[in-house]
Amino acid sequence: MLFFTQCFGAVLDLIHLRFQHYKAKRVFSAAGQLVCVVNPTHSLKYAPTRCAAAQASTEQGILPPCHHPEAVHDPQLVPCTCPLFSCPWEGHLEVVVSHLRQTHRINILQGAEIVFLATDMHLPAPMDWIIMHSCLGHQFLLVLRKQEKYEGHPQFFATMMLIGTPSQANNFTYRLELNRNQRRLKWEATPRSILECVDSVISDGDCLVLNTSLAQLFSDNGSLAIGIAITTSKVHSSEAEM
Amino acid sequence: MLFFTQCFGAVLDLIHLRFQHYKAKRVFSAAGQLVCVVNPTHSLKYAPTRCAAAQASTEQGILPPCHHPEAVHDPQLVPCTCPLFSCPWEGHLEVVVSHLRQTHRINILQGAEIVFLATDMHLPAPMDWIIMHSCLGHQFLLVLRKQEKYEGHPQFFATMMLIGTPSQANNFTYRLELNRNQRRLKWEATPRSILECVDSVISDGDCLVLNTSLAQLFSDNGSLAIGIAITTSKVHSSEAEM
Repeated sequence: MLFFTQCFGAVLDLIHLRFQHYKAKRVFSAAGQLVCVVNPTHSLKYAPTRCAAAQASTEQGILPPCHHPEAVHDPQLVPCTCPLFSCPWEGHLEVVVSHLRQTHRINILQGAEIVFLATDMHLPAPMDWIIMHSCLGHQFLLVLRKQEKYEGHPQFFATMMLIGTPSQANNFTYRLELNRNQRRLKWEATPRSILECVDSVISDGDCLVLNTSLAQLFSDNGSLAIGIAITTSKVHSSEAEM
Repeated sequence: MLFFTQCFGAVLDLIHLRFQHYKAKRVFSAAGQLVCVVNPTHSLKYAPTRCAAAQASTEQGILPPCHHPEAVHDPQLVPCTCPLFSCPWEGHLEVVVSHLRQTHRINILQGAEIVFLATDMHLPAPMDWIIMHSCLGHQFLLVLRKQEKYEGHPQFFATMMLIGTPSQANNFTYRLELNRNQRRLKWEATPRSILECVDSVISDGDCLVLNTSLAQLFSDNGSLAIGIAITTSKVHSSEAEM
């Protein structure tokens, strides 16, 4: 009996996911983009001040690990960059992606333009929605975080990090786009390197920021569809004419 | 002596304004857009709950005045829509623009694309930056407001209102664009009618919202340049394909 109840639950879940996928496709069908349904994960290592020291060193041009700084002796080794779990792993930059996939089960998607469909936006902060995105010969980490910077006022922060060095990151531009109810919000920026620590990017507010009312305006039945595009960097047209 | 000191002050002010104008032009020179330097005004009538009743009636399809509801007997008359001052004036929608220009000294600019250069962004909330914008045969009111929704955490809210009815407003789309430091933020929406009350649009958060850190990233020396474009409405491309 329990087995049949579980089967029925699983089928319902599948139907629900399929329905969400279909809805996102309707909205972002323009370029036949891939839609990826991303469920939230409660961050197990959330600590806002964790990266203060790391950030200070980054500003001085040194690229420290995000945590366990005392453990890194070989400068070629980087710590685990997973925003969700405190993990003692460290390794070369080239194997960060396979570590994130295998150990932390973070999905990876291919394609220049994809749709990130974050479900269950109503769940209480802190919460993270994470995927990796493979594109233009590199891998990127997309993080959407629900966090209460000011107590009782959760906000959503979305950013894209290159799994690579800061100088490699400067070669790209990423775009996050929300589009619903005759409203459109676009954020374009150069991705930051994963070595700079996602927590400090979010605490600096140098990313797409949504307060709860805007997130609700762009959500559909508790899910937020974010269109993502990555291009190789060109100097923004109006700045180039300076 | 006092006269010479004042003259010298005035010349310095002019040089400062000219410099700001030049800087904004450098950033937004692409389409030969008009740059309008807008100084802040401390709102003299700020009261967040003022429009609660008005908003409730608007949701029921009635368009009430924003304040002094008891004074409006002729349904063709609308109250003064100036977001800055509590003003007992009321008149027909067609003469709101001339009232705002003459009585409240709000500037009006012509052109489909203009740059709104808000100065002195550091001044404490509540503060408003306001101009009117004449375009496509209609007049729009652009309001940038610095306000503390949460005590100690000022935010910036920018919206565009049509000086006309809600059904006329549905024919347009406005775009606000910030562009600096290899970051770009765009907000596109249908303007709301001035009859819906700017205070309720801002308290709903249905507008471009910037927290202090983002506003600083986009500001240059305390001034924020917002590129503004108005077009006649077409259903957003990806929604049209639904």
